[in-house]
This record gives sequence, C-alpha cells and structure tokens, in this order.
Amino acid sequence: MPTFRLVLEYDGTDFAGWQSQAGGERTVQATLAAALADLAGGPVRVTGAGRTDAGVHAEGQVAAATLDTRLDAETLVRALNAKLPPDVAVRAAALATEGFDPRREAKGKLYRYAVWNGAAPSPLRLRRSHHVREPLDVAAMRAAAAHLVGRHDFASLQGAGSSARSSVRSVSEASVEGEPGGEIRFELTGDGFLRHMVRNAVGTLLEVGLGRREAASLPALLAARDRSRAGPTAPARGLTLVRVDY
Amino acid sequence: MPTFRLVLEYDGTDFAGWQSQAGGERTVQATLAAALADLAGGPVRVTGAGRTDAGVHAEGQVAAATLDTRLDAETLVRALNAKLPPDVAVRAAALATEGFDPRREAKGKLYRYAVWNGAAPSPLRLRRSHHVREPLDVAAMRAAAAHLVGRHDFASLQGAGSSARSSVRSVSEASVEGEPGGEIRFELTGDGFLRHMVRNAVGTLLEVGLGRREAASLPALLAARDRSRAGPTAPARGLTLVRVDY
Repeated sequence: MPTFRLVLEYDGTDFAGWQSQAGGERTVQATLAAALADLAGGPVRVTGAGRTDAGVHAEGQVAAATLDTRLDAETLVRALNAKLPPDVAVRAAALATEGFDPRREAKGKLYRYAVWNGAAPSPLRLRRSHHVREPLDVAAMRAAAAHLVGRHDFASLQGAGSSARSSVRSVSEASVEGEPGGEIRFELTGDGFLRHMVRNAVGTLLEVGLGRREAASLPALLAARDRSRAGPTAPARGLTLVRVDY
Repeated sequence: MPTFRLVLEYDGTDFAGWQSQAGGERTVQATLAAALADLAGGPVRVTGAGRTDAGVHAEGQVAAATLDTRLDAETLVRALNAKLPPDVAVRAAALATEGFDPRREAKGKLYRYAVWNGAAPSPLRLRRSHHVREPLDVAAMRAAAAHLVGRHDFASLQGAGSSARSSVRSVSEASVEGEPGGEIRFELTGDGFLRHMVRNAVGTLLEVGLGRREAASLPALLAARDRSRAGPTAPARGLTLVRVDY
C-alpha cells in the first residue's frame, strides 16, 4: 500500500487540536482519518509532524497516511478536499517512502505567532491573533528573542504534561517584526519544540515588550530550568505552524 | 447633543449586512445602535456611509451617532468596544458637525475584493476570500478593469432592487494585483457604488480571467446598460469596505 505525505492547512479555531482523543472531540487528525477512510473503504492510520494544540492553526502541517488506493497524489488531493470540512484542506500530496514518519524525520519547524497591538480590538484579525492593547516595545522583545537562539535546555518554557525525554532543543532563528500599535509577528525556527514552548516564549517576550521584564533576564530564566520563572502561555489563536522541513 | 463620527471594523460573516431590517436579523447597524443605547440610556439613531450586504466585511465603515453623553471620543471608543460583540469594533471616534451625514458627505470609497486562486481551498482565507480554482489571467483582468475607470453609466453592473435615482458613477481607480495560483486582490475606488456593483464587476472580471470573455468587450457591456450582459455577482465573503473618504 502506498504511503502519502500530505501538507495540510487548517483554521484551528473549531478543532480540539491535532491529536485524536479518547473522548471523541473534533480533532484535525480524526477529521482527516475519517475522510481517508471514506476514500479507502476502511480505517487509515494518520500521523502528524506536530501536535498542534486546540485553537492553533497550520499553513503547512505534514501528515503521513498509508492507504489502499490507486489514486495518484494529485487526484487524492482533490478527492480529499471534496470530503473535508471547510476549515481543513490538503494543500499538496506526494508519494513517500514506506514507513515515513513525519514527526521523527522532521529536520525543523517554523512557527509564527501574531499579536494585534492596536488600541481597539480588530474583528478581522480575531481568529488569528492575540490582542495586546498596551503599546509594545518591539526592540526590547527582539533583544530578548535573540537569547532564545542556540542549543538550550528550554525546561523553563515547557508546558506541564509534556512527555518529552529531554527538554534540550535548538532554535536557529527567532524574529520579531512589526510596529507598536500595529501587527507584530514572532517567528521561531528550530529542530523541535516542547509542549507550549512557542506560546510560553511569546508570553515571556510580551512581558518584556510591556516593560515588566528585562530582555537581559532571558539567559538566567533559561538557566533556571523552572517554568514558574517564565511568563504566561500566550493564547492559542495567535499561533500558526507555518512549515515543517525535511 | 454631540454627534460622533465612528470608524468601524467588522467581520461580516455572521451579520445580515449593515442595515437594520424589519425582521430583526442581526445587522451591524442594529448591533452598534444597541451598544450606543446602552451607554446613552435611550435609543440612538445610527447612520452609515455604505450599506454593506450580508457577509461583506469592513475595515473602515463610517457611521454617525448623536447621543446624550459627556464621554469624550476616546473614552466612547473604549466604552463601546467593551459592549460590542467580538466581530465588530470601533477603531476611532471624533466629534462631527451637527447633522453630519456619513453617506451624503462621503467623497469616495475604496472597496477591496480578495480571490484565492490556489488549486486547493485555503481554510485560513475562507471567511475573507472567494476561491477560484482555475488559474486566472491577471493581465487580462487588469486590462478589463481599466475600462471601468471614468464616469460611466454602470446600469449593466447594478443589482436588482436598487433605489438609486441615477446609475452614473465615477470610478477613479481599478487595480488587480497578485499572481495566478495565489492571492489576487481587486481594488475599486470611486465616488459611490451602486448595489452589488463591485461584486458584479468582479464576477465579470473573473470571466475575463477564465478566458470566457474578452477584456475589450467591457466598453460595449457598459454601453448596453443591461445587467444580463455582465457576469454573475461574486460572493460577498471576498468583499471589504476598506475606507470612506470625506
């Protein structure tokens, strides 16, 4: 049976995250598996590169699916999109090698976090950004973000309930773009991310941007390996898994 | 009583348009009037610059409201946003002259229409763009759009049920930006727009982009003053009232 590598886009607002759950909540994985099962005429196992949380979006989540089909990749994309609900779509598909594991084989991921920094809320940005009303110091947040780059133990930014064996990760790029009062975008690229790591990093950088924490305090925060030293978890709606690299 | 000029942003998806209706549908005008009435302690009359249809969005709709309040404009913005639902917000407020009529006094308006031209649907663009799967000829659409610029009788692009006395309008700019397979944006600036005029213009331009109609046919189409000669009304979700100029 052929294995396909699927690139997915979804609006996470109305999903209980990527991963299928015992309670039968509406998840992206289960929604995709149901569409594939419909095509294949039997259950299809689906694995994903990143376990996005409830409310988190994706422009380029990668999934693997092995199914008994004679459809070529392009036809599979159209057939799946005809079955999927409007808040999830397959952007592309390609044949993968047998046993392709989108999570273990991923070399890197890019996450983007969007903040709307206007004085008034922005209804058109509501689903995809976190509103922070007080003007943010972008230069200070950029200086703080630079301390995240490199190979570090990110235990201070790891959410509770993580099953990761090690909390050491490499962040290759951390950028902050935009202007106070407008849209501000955080981008983090790395070889892997711990549970809630991006949202905890952004929550901490926002405290820097609000003047409640010094940019220069980031190295000590990481060295402490203590979640209670970092800022709050920024809301899921601002986060998008942009790309997975192989 | 002071009159305020309010600049509004809204996601039109869940509204039955701007204008209050006898049936009590959820409209932007009625939603804003209810928030103002709550602040003023009595009914407040609200008028708007443009009667956006059901599903049409706004980044810069302008409204006038006269109410008995001692709040200054900045405080009014915050108080209103605290009362409004998340899909509509006041971006700015300023004191206006007595009798300010946002519709009659408008000198011009800018509308934007967004098309997603990817082969697969885009869930993250779903609420704000119309999906056209077949690759569009952007240069041909641009050539066709150029024929809309100027003072013309736009009866061929006027929706049924319009109450406008004249169908002559001036379009000062008509642009088409983007690439086939990606996001394509149409922008029309003019002194005023007839009912469904922008959506009918876009529906006609899309037929040009799909090779079903010649760009050079636009002058004869306008001269015919016959709605049946133009293309279909493009879906509301792609349209945004960007700005009203005074």
